[in-house]
Amino acid sequence: MNIGLDMMGGDLAPLEAVKGVQQFLTEENSSAVLFLIGDQSKTEPLLTEFNFPVDRVKLIHAEQVIDMHEHPTKALKEKQKSSIAVGFHLLASGKTDAFISAGNTGAMLVGALFSIKAIKGVLRPTISTIIPKENGATGILLDVGLNADCKPEQLNQFAVMGSVFAKMILGIENPRVGLMNVGEEEGKGNILTQATFPLLKENKHIHFIGNIEGRDVLMDKADVMVCEGFTGNIILKLAETLYEITQRKNIQHEYFDRFNFEIYGGTPVLGVNKPVIIGHGISHGIAFKNMIVLAQKMIEKKVMEKMKEELQ
Amino acid sequence: MNIGLDMMGGDLAPLEAVKGVQQFLTEENSSAVLFLIGDQSKTEPLLTEFNFPVDRVKLIHAEQVIDMHEHPTKALKEKQKSSIAVGFHLLASGKTDAFISAGNTGAMLVGALFSIKAIKGVLRPTISTIIPKENGATGILLDVGLNADCKPEQLNQFAVMGSVFAKMILGIENPRVGLMNVGEEEGKGNILTQATFPLLKENKHIHFIGNIEGRDVLMDKADVMVCEGFTGNIILKLAETLYEITQRKNIQHEYFDRFNFEIYGGTPVLGVNKPVIIGHGISHGIAFKNMIVLAQKMIEKKVMEKMKEELQ
Repeated sequence: MNIGLDMMGGDLAPLEAVKGVQQFLTEENSSAVLFLIGDQSKTEPLLTEFNFPVDRVKLIHAEQVIDMHEHPTKALKEKQKSSIAVGFHLLASGKTDAFISAGNTGAMLVGALFSIKAIKGVLRPTISTIIPKENGATGILLDVGLNADCKPEQLNQFAVMGSVFAKMILGIENPRVGLMNVGEEEGKGNILTQATFPLLKENKHIHFIGNIEGRDVLMDKADVMVCEGFTGNIILKLAETLYEITQRKNIQHEYFDRFNFEIYGGTPVLGVNKPVIIGHGISHGIAFKNMIVLAQKMIEKKVMEKMKEELQ
Repeated sequence: MNIGLDMMGGDLAPLEAVKGVQQFLTEENSSAVLFLIGDQSKTEPLLTEFNFPVDRVKLIHAEQVIDMHEHPTKALKEKQKSSIAVGFHLLASGKTDAFISAGNTGAMLVGALFSIKAIKGVLRPTISTIIPKENGATGILLDVGLNADCKPEQLNQFAVMGSVFAKMILGIENPRVGLMNVGEEEGKGNILTQATFPLLKENKHIHFIGNIEGRDVLMDKADVMVCEGFTGNIILKLAETLYEITQRKNIQHEYFDRFNFEIYGGTPVLGVNKPVIIGHGISHGIAFKNMIVLAQKMIEKKVMEKMKEELQ
């Protein structure tokens, strides 16, 4: 198993990426080979310093870097030797089985769509977030920003992809799907959710439990929470601030610690043919390690293949 | 000044409503007369027990009650002697200057629209919520559920109404208006926010500071946060659970105490011709008292008149 990792992505690259690699190699019982993609002059000294086993890491030189604020499509086209472009070349050609970057999110998405492409029949890929439930359980919310405007059919596909992820990665047996809405009863909501409800209800690939509300997001009501990317993005970013606020206000509690999204690593792009994981710009070592762990799990469990089956 | 109060609205009526009246009469230096509307057989014994000064309260008999789950329009039509219907009759005829109820939200909205009507030019009234900011400041978010689908022109009006409320009731000098969105830059967002941005930018009645994101909701970035009622409702209900969770988990902090929405009383309906305030179904005495205080302030400051001016 070969996992590609962009060493130049994120504000703290490449040092934190290297630290993540170290944590993965020392803490995880794995035989995965890591393809470390980045500027040799910057990564090689670090790799020498950290003294990684040569059979577990492979340095891939990429002389360019796509900055965080570059235009995704333009940058990918013009910077074919960037770490992100090289990462996707390796993935598309089969040399790696997954690709991870904490770099330019847009470039990662465009790269995924143009190199490994969306799963046949998928209208649009999606990104999700882990939601820590009050009772200790873990849910998944999607879409969280890739698709600000959605059609009912897209939400229906998000429900399927989210269910596969919840089952295979989060280990939830028969994940309950809830439609994010402003009321519980069928018929409530905006035009989109009103049109989506019947699709979810009829979908035999999911276990739909009906509408859920804002008050249910942190409760153990639905495991897979489906919405368009506008609402999802706002919920995600609001949830992220909860951890920051409790840190700043010195409020110590294990529940709020679970809102430290670094512990989940990054978010996988669901609906494309191979595992692609996007990290937060300020990812530290732990986040990189967790993204590698997630990539490994997604490869092992054949998550993308399972999604293809369920989406037929 | 006469303020109408539905004694039968809410799960804890009429006792908690009576307690709220008592708190208002004893704690507030006011000369407002309270019109207590409800079933005489249920309210009179309580009023006698609490021994309110006769010049400050006026009992108005209403033999019917609209239940929480009745269909608003149907119930209002058929129950002309319900406390909500009587409350709006008093308000529309000028016998009272404001009306408060913790009863059926839909009936309150329908009643407001049909009796005192929307301010001329207002496409749709709106309801808002107070948002406690991390630094101790207070913001307002609107719409929070009345309008699940919105047009850009509606959001533009919400911005004006929210600004007037923030200025006159929250005492914020030149309230900063932010458009809830998924990115900071102009041009980001869904179809609705992309179309709304230029309207807000050109609106001379508000101080527009641009897009805000989920991470800004609890930060002191914008005082007036504008969105359609779908997103707003989900944010509100999510925020409400924060207080409940911290209570259940025994996390004590003054910041989270501010998410106890009872301290704000209820939400005013903005965009109608007179002050109408809707309380939460489980309102306690303190919530009723705070709603009376808010109604009084809205009457004194002529908030509705100011909105009319600003919306021209």
